[in-house]
Amino acid sequence: MLPGPTNVPDRVAQAMLKPIINHRSEGFHSLLKPIIAKAKVVFETQADIAVLTCSGTGGVETAVMNVVRPGDDVLVPVFGEFSQRLADSIDQVGGHAIRVAAPIGDAPSPDLLEDAARKAPRLKAVFVVYNDTSPGTTYRWMKEASDVAKAHGAFCISDAVSILGGDELPQDKWGIDMVVTASQKCLAAPPGLALVSISEPLKKYVISNPPLSTYFNLAKYVEFNQKSETPFTPALPLFYALDEALSLVVEEGMDKRVARHRITAQAFYDSLSFVGLHPFVKEHVRSNVVVSVRYPEGMDDKAFRSTVEDSFGVVLAGGFGELKGKIFRIGNMGEVQRWHVLTTLNAIGGAMAAVGHVVDTGEMIKVAQERLRPLSG
Amino acid sequence: MLPGPTNVPDRVAQAMLKPIINHRSEGFHSLLKPIIAKAKVVFETQADIAVLTCSGTGGVETAVMNVVRPGDDVLVPVFGEFSQRLADSIDQVGGHAIRVAAPIGDAPSPDLLEDAARKAPRLKAVFVVYNDTSPGTTYRWMKEASDVAKAHGAFCISDAVSILGGDELPQDKWGIDMVVTASQKCLAAPPGLALVSISEPLKKYVISNPPLSTYFNLAKYVEFNQKSETPFTPALPLFYALDEALSLVVEEGMDKRVARHRITAQAFYDSLSFVGLHPFVKEHVRSNVVVSVRYPEGMDDKAFRSTVEDSFGVVLAGGFGELKGKIFRIGNMGEVQRWHVLTTLNAIGGAMAAVGHVVDTGEMIKVAQERLRPLSG
Repeated sequence: MLPGPTNVPDRVAQAMLKPIINHRSEGFHSLLKPIIAKAKVVFETQADIAVLTCSGTGGVETAVMNVVRPGDDVLVPVFGEFSQRLADSIDQVGGHAIRVAAPIGDAPSPDLLEDAARKAPRLKAVFVVYNDTSPGTTYRWMKEASDVAKAHGAFCISDAVSILGGDELPQDKWGIDMVVTASQKCLAAPPGLALVSISEPLKKYVISNPPLSTYFNLAKYVEFNQKSETPFTPALPLFYALDEALSLVVEEGMDKRVARHRITAQAFYDSLSFVGLHPFVKEHVRSNVVVSVRYPEGMDDKAFRSTVEDSFGVVLAGGFGELKGKIFRIGNMGEVQRWHVLTTLNAIGGAMAAVGHVVDTGEMIKVAQERLRPLSG
Repeated sequence: MLPGPTNVPDRVAQAMLKPIINHRSEGFHSLLKPIIAKAKVVFETQADIAVLTCSGTGGVETAVMNVVRPGDDVLVPVFGEFSQRLADSIDQVGGHAIRVAAPIGDAPSPDLLEDAARKAPRLKAVFVVYNDTSPGTTYRWMKEASDVAKAHGAFCISDAVSILGGDELPQDKWGIDMVVTASQKCLAAPPGLALVSISEPLKKYVISNPPLSTYFNLAKYVEFNQKSETPFTPALPLFYALDEALSLVVEEGMDKRVARHRITAQAFYDSLSFVGLHPFVKEHVRSNVVVSVRYPEGMDDKAFRSTVEDSFGVVLAGGFGELKGKIFRIGNMGEVQRWHVLTTLNAIGGAMAAVGHVVDTGEMIKVAQERLRPLSG
């Protein structure tokens, strides 16, 4: 139950065994074409989508490299480790990241973004980490951030690496120019691919302002997309797997899928709170895909997490940076179903007891079952 | 029989089905450690080796980005499409590529490199495409190129994307600072991973001169290698497959593997020449991993290659750029065995006849069988 890479359904894994074909052939065209068509359904966009062989970090770097030029002002809400890193990477390519920060466990309101935008003379983009997995916080004003960008003639970019497919992000409806995600989080495919969408206005910019990197040059991906090819040799088995994983998402339907994540997240938050294991993040910005929980006073992170893994077979993540030892995190991503929630809660209860902090597991499960009622199976 | 991606042995493909594990866990450590140990055997080096989730082009870009800084002189032997592109990519990052060219089908001698090096005041590196797949030419003076680099206080880099594991390239013995390869060529793993080795002197440079790119920053890979991790989420199924593919190489032994490629290449060259289908490349720089053959006068490339594929089930590559329509190319890579050669030759004979150019297939096969005698099976 890590916050990615997530478990890969058997049907997705088996797809990797399809034959190695020439990526300049009709066979590959008829693989990439439906991948992009289905990705557009998931992104809720008409925009073009590039599929790159690299990690999510590579995808975010692609966004930074293609959009930010030396001297550009870029507004970044900072509310966790990953949004901090994003701001740093903007500075690294010569951009000027304007950090609008909030205390950890909360997120900066869009009013603060608007204030900062007014003071930024060369605002190129508003770049938002939609879900920062380090505290487990979702930026709930993605649409408002996009409005701020538009009002100031800037692009709006959403780093949705850890969340797309697990919560709502209607790109076109919200007016977002670029959404970045990765295969191994809420899409439940194996790691190794990044997907980057590019709106028409941003496409024009990208084509006439190529970055230093050839591999991350989106203009090339856009160009090759026209013939359903990638500019560089694709990681073919991962494309087969992504194709299958996207089919699963489309078959379930985005609305149902987002609702499922909401229900399982609520089941975690409510049941754990009920027995005194409190969510770390403020309610209005809590993530539905990464559930972070404060440790009870004095509990040893390592002892708890190794017990929950070794004795109960559930892998949980610890805290990151300043949150190390203070929280544990549950990935609530991808194929997570009713039984994942109940098994995980039961394991947490068992491990807590084993390390000397008894919680009422029965009551916890009861609350969760109540919340999970809308889900079948 | 394409010059990559090559066929993947079943044992390698099946390895991709192993479970998705946390890449920050002991389980991943005990996967990456033997991968790097076996890669060192294949590279014949004590140098550190980074494994990146990207294509071979990404690997070469990594080399360029980590070594070349604006204003640096870099010597590049140019003898085909890929060496030309390499020179262009050096210019693109602000370097100054000094192109030492030869007519297509030949390669520039090391004397010419030495002359050019003498005139280059800020020589940072000699960067050689060891095997340019577009004409099917191998730079047979890789060692001499390295000597030129050393004599001028420069690094020697070898782009061995299409050849490592199929011909000799003893990195340490030849004094090469960096070798770049990819998973899907002579290593016969699926596409999606690049391997980049870094000598101790180059490592020092790389650590103190980070590139603009974070994803391609080799200092990070070197740092994470110490704990047997990758800095960014690895394409796990491809790592499982690479592990298996490297085991196959090590089990066969590099000497035997290189000898096998030599024998199968010689069988192709000699048998095809015997019936008047002449190699395109001059004998002294012919590749053992990409066999390029001149078309007989008037033969239609598309008709021939579609016949050989549709009627005889063998996929061949055409020519590239200025060689389009003039040559066809056979990938002689990875798991190529006696029967691949004979089946391919038979298919070529059949297809030639079908498009109106009759060759003596029987004689061709006889010559090949003779050359293939040292191989069992």
